[in-house]
Amino acid sequence: MSTEPGGNDSATTRSAATDAAASQRLERQMRFILEADRLKGVLRQTALVDGSRRENSAEHSWHLTLMAVVLAEHAEEPVALERVLKMLVVHDVVEIDAGDTFLYDDTGHDDKQARERAAAERLFGLLPDDQAGELRALWDEFEARETPEARFAVAVDALQPMMHNVCNGGGTWRYPGVHREKVLARKRSIAAGSGTLWAYALRLVEGAVARGELAPQPEPEPGDD
Amino acid sequence: MSTEPGGNDSATTRSAATDAAASQRLERQMRFILEADRLKGVLRQTALVDGSRRENSAEHSWHLTLMAVVLAEHAEEPVALERVLKMLVVHDVVEIDAGDTFLYDDTGHDDKQARERAAAERLFGLLPDDQAGELRALWDEFEARETPEARFAVAVDALQPMMHNVCNGGGTWRYPGVHREKVLARKRSIAAGSGTLWAYALRLVEGAVARGELAPQPEPEPGDD
Repeated sequence: MSTEPGGNDSATTRSAATDAAASQRLERQMRFILEADRLKGVLRQTALVDGSRRENSAEHSWHLTLMAVVLAEHAEEPVALERVLKMLVVHDVVEIDAGDTFLYDDTGHDDKQARERAAAERLFGLLPDDQAGELRALWDEFEARETPEARFAVAVDALQPMMHNVCNGGGTWRYPGVHREKVLARKRSIAAGSGTLWAYALRLVEGAVARGELAPQPEPEPGDD
Repeated sequence: MSTEPGGNDSATTRSAATDAAASQRLERQMRFILEADRLKGVLRQTALVDGSRRENSAEHSWHLTLMAVVLAEHAEEPVALERVLKMLVVHDVVEIDAGDTFLYDDTGHDDKQARERAAAERLFGLLPDDQAGELRALWDEFEARETPEARFAVAVDALQPMMHNVCNGGGTWRYPGVHREKVLARKRSIAAGSGTLWAYALRLVEGAVARGELAPQPEPEPGDD
């Protein structure tokens, strides 16, 4: 586009424009990476295995990727592990804006989807457009549970806090209003991802009920007698 | 092997043996997964981006997998992302026994390798033998830095705390004995994994020096004048 004499200005301009675009792309990637650090401050209800403190969503996400690596052979259908791992890496990022919604909190679940969608728009939107689309698609895939990879990732995500609860004398299973049937209903997603892990989860539940760490049925309401 | 009448006992015995082996395999996998939880309690010197507390090695590992997903295009050579992610997921697990060795702690590095090897033996050894071998091989690959995947994973691991330091007014760069040349020497591994990320890292270092957050050269020793 240059009308200057010298011949090379057009190439130089194009090259400078390319450099600026590459630099801007990298800056957007780094901006997202720094913003994502806030996931380390999002606390879940579940405690660490040693009971010392509540778990945050970043370290939880790491734990799930480790589980996926070790447990992939138990997936109900063969899975592409790379996509399972990518889904697990990004699946909780929306909690930076939307917070972690406790599984047994019925009220929080009413507007969970709307809050998380807005969060996905803003957070993935920090990235260059193509990557914003790619990570958003991974998150959508996880939420939809329609592929073998998503079902296995969801199963691992659902199983991990159950293992923590067993190490913590019941953990969140001791919260008011939580009982065996409610746990089984909320955790049934494990079965679609892995029959083996679902059988394992059932053993954890029955063990907790037998030890008195999980109520076998709902508490009778006052006046229910 | 059965001499009982009835015909099916041999098959039943074989099936029971297979079930027991499968059950034992799953138990070993779960034992490793629960033990790995302790990585959430291993503190690094680096603080979170908001400076609120020190980072632990589990959430750090998650952050690196997110970086690898977003920054893979900048790898010096094309990389198999699945193996990069698996390496990053397991690369710090040895710290459960060996602790995190601060990059600028010269003493701690003397026996780092021996401590970490013993840790790898014990921790990966909790898994079924085939998986113990696989995860140990991933850790060895990361440490050896001889494949494009390992070099890129190492680059991401080296860059992340530099980004945190910049957000924290210098962070660990303000520790006694740390200066520009020492940082560049310890971080040169980034260059082998990604020229783009190395150029970015250099800009972070020069910026910190310009702002007085990183010493440009070693402090003169007492009597050095």
